[in-house]
Amino acid sequence: MQKEIPYKIYLEETELPKQWLNLRAFMPHKPAPLLHPQTLRPITKTELSEVFCEELAKQELDDTTPYIDIPDEVRNFYKMYRPAPLIRAYFLEKELDTPAKIYYKFEGNNTSGSHKLNSAIAQAYYAKAQGLSGVTTETGAGQWGTALSMACSYFGLDCKVFMVKCSYEQKPFRREVMRTYGATVTPSPSQTTKIGREILARFPNTSGSLGCAISEAVEASMQSESYRYALGSVLNQVLLHQSIIGLEAKTALDKYSVKPDVIIGCAGGGSNLGGLIAPFMAEQLQGKAKYRFIAVEPASCPTLTRGKYAYDYCDTGKICPLSKMYTLGSGFIPSASHAGGLRYHGMTSTLSELYHQGLMEARAVTQTSVFSAAEQFARVEGTLPAPESAHAIRVAIDEALKCKQTGEEKTILFGLTGTGYFDMMSYEKFHDGKMTDYIPSDEEIANGLAGLPTL
Amino acid sequence: MQKEIPYKIYLEETELPKQWLNLRAFMPHKPAPLLHPQTLRPITKTELSEVFCEELAKQELDDTTPYIDIPDEVRNFYKMYRPAPLIRAYFLEKELDTPAKIYYKFEGNNTSGSHKLNSAIAQAYYAKAQGLSGVTTETGAGQWGTALSMACSYFGLDCKVFMVKCSYEQKPFRREVMRTYGATVTPSPSQTTKIGREILARFPNTSGSLGCAISEAVEASMQSESYRYALGSVLNQVLLHQSIIGLEAKTALDKYSVKPDVIIGCAGGGSNLGGLIAPFMAEQLQGKAKYRFIAVEPASCPTLTRGKYAYDYCDTGKICPLSKMYTLGSGFIPSASHAGGLRYHGMTSTLSELYHQGLMEARAVTQTSVFSAAEQFARVEGTLPAPESAHAIRVAIDEALKCKQTGEEKTILFGLTGTGYFDMMSYEKFHDGKMTDYIPSDEEIANGLAGLPTL
Repeated sequence: MQKEIPYKIYLEETELPKQWLNLRAFMPHKPAPLLHPQTLRPITKTELSEVFCEELAKQELDDTTPYIDIPDEVRNFYKMYRPAPLIRAYFLEKELDTPAKIYYKFEGNNTSGSHKLNSAIAQAYYAKAQGLSGVTTETGAGQWGTALSMACSYFGLDCKVFMVKCSYEQKPFRREVMRTYGATVTPSPSQTTKIGREILARFPNTSGSLGCAISEAVEASMQSESYRYALGSVLNQVLLHQSIIGLEAKTALDKYSVKPDVIIGCAGGGSNLGGLIAPFMAEQLQGKAKYRFIAVEPASCPTLTRGKYAYDYCDTGKICPLSKMYTLGSGFIPSASHAGGLRYHGMTSTLSELYHQGLMEARAVTQTSVFSAAEQFARVEGTLPAPESAHAIRVAIDEALKCKQTGEEKTILFGLTGTGYFDMMSYEKFHDGKMTDYIPSDEEIANGLAGLPTL
Repeated sequence: MQKEIPYKIYLEETELPKQWLNLRAFMPHKPAPLLHPQTLRPITKTELSEVFCEELAKQELDDTTPYIDIPDEVRNFYKMYRPAPLIRAYFLEKELDTPAKIYYKFEGNNTSGSHKLNSAIAQAYYAKAQGLSGVTTETGAGQWGTALSMACSYFGLDCKVFMVKCSYEQKPFRREVMRTYGATVTPSPSQTTKIGREILARFPNTSGSLGCAISEAVEASMQSESYRYALGSVLNQVLLHQSIIGLEAKTALDKYSVKPDVIIGCAGGGSNLGGLIAPFMAEQLQGKAKYRFIAVEPASCPTLTRGKYAYDYCDTGKICPLSKMYTLGSGFIPSASHAGGLRYHGMTSTLSELYHQGLMEARAVTQTSVFSAAEQFARVEGTLPAPESAHAIRVAIDEALKCKQTGEEKTILFGLTGTGYFDMMSYEKFHDGKMTDYIPSDEEIANGLAGLPTL
């Protein structure tokens, strides 16, 4: 007899994974290597170690070790907010009157308000272990900056955050959370870096971009021997750390003998989706199971659905390594949207390669349709989702409604990456009917792609 | 052998309490009855039913039934966010280097951000069951209004919230959360009620007060037959619903054979503290155990520590019943503080009576000392507390530091009622050194008490 499934499945603390899963190790066709921005040759561990901690540089390049131990101190910190719940969306199912069974892995039950903390604490740990004084980073919507501030505070590390200027101004409360955890927060572009001064000279009124803030944070990390740079998405190391999302989700589902048919996640740089699908995709690559995977991206920044699979710079300043990925071009400036965390021109190389091989689907959705889903979800499930996370909700609802039409009892799993408490200005615009949708023209997309480097 | 205690103790869904605990039923000396504001005689169920739903009026007056069934539909909703975790503050203990063992019951893992949802859903349920169209209420800091909005949205009820004007202006995001859940939010005092217009005529520049917003909400509920009024604290019915906090906490502690020595909670109207201590105090009143209970209040609004135990009006407009309670006088206007949820002139009659009998201690703390504790807590425990909740943290830390001096291994339990995501303006003031402490003079206290009614 099948056990009755509770609303919230909490694993025991003892069931917290002891190892991260390195998805690349399971891929017969590996993602292409990172290239050094000057030499354009595959970057070495030594070169990468100038930017990242040594252990992280090693993880970044390791595409063969299937499982990597989670250090005890990181695992100990995880206990502060993990295992995170897997929630059966009974209320949403009832609201939609669908035969589909919907589950979501909720990563918002921590003060950073998102899954970002999973990698932040790992990156801070390795920085501490290497004897560094601190780390630098950038933040767009603010979740990553908050997460890294919390992690650094825990290990007594300094944390310098470059916050995209429009977010800095629109989200003063996010900034204050970071300050509460002892971080210094600088609006980007700033006068504190060469690249920042250059951009300000050319575009004095710019409201900044993630690509630009990355360049500034990398440059700032190089101003001192005892600092390194930390990045919250896109990188292989981040996907590795985020695999804890999928590992916990799979353990929880396995306990109740539930096998998802469709797995859905929002995708900006790809860290949450990559983490969520990791153990499921690994199983599929081993021929042990079959799932549908759907990446959901904003129609205003349609990296997978309208971008090109090519080598490109990860940042605007072109000082970071090049990655082979789906990209809109590092010069593509996504329109201002209310899902700041998804405004990135590229996509992590692992997911790009999986998508290229046809192992994953992608869907682009407009922001008004996303907020509509967010509100519907909040009213029945209680949790107020972040706009980024609500992209996954949109497609989960769409899939559940299809099941209603066909009568199929599909099992849907999606990732609810975080909460929207700091996004109420966006909700206000939506309520007041002042939110519009922007879809880039073919010309804009072509212009962005025209800036791709020729190797 | 004692089981190892995890960081977070989650009860199973099946362990969710099936009954609330009515603390008054265990008290040999009952709290004094509510008086009708016109007749000054004990109010009857019929009279109370003009303001509250019938079932709630019944609960309000019932001081003999020890346990009251939680309706299935309320229990079902509880599963959205309950059982709430009991957390062992290992990180804080390490930070303080104390032999004390610290536990906190965390009620912030829901979108209302606090324990208020526990009573909101019960009050909305009874309104729905009675066939009403909607409810009216007031909100200060915003937690209660958010909670009631969520609860009403779930049952398809209309929700009219009068929000204290200064909060309405300082916390636009709180307002938007309520709108997301479909509520209408009016800044108080407003032109929509007689009492609001009177107050505005006398004090055109007033930033409002909770007492005034209560009067407006009660008046608004009386404008239609199909509306009733809902209140988030002070009332006996609210303490009843909030007993779920203590019941879960006690079940979780009992599982690990842990018995707290000291139980600490912040106290504004008293609902959270009353709920937290309910099963422990009931045990003590039956002579089965002995605990220390500490109510923590702001030094700026020192109801228990400097107020008088007397009959007083619950609202500024004097249209609500009178309650015998510790009070500073219904005309006492607490100074603007950053713990809006604790700015109330009175204290629920049950806790007032227990305090009067010497069964509970009380302590008043300044807001800068509270924010200092809040920041210390956030940095090690992760969760960013609401300023209200941080009052309990302050005293829990003080007690733990005493244990460090004496070497005693006391077990401390406190209530962490909610999160501070909407209080970042207050944290900013604290970071910037711009927060001051206000302690009312003896003359101010005497002036407030001079306004007490003579019966």
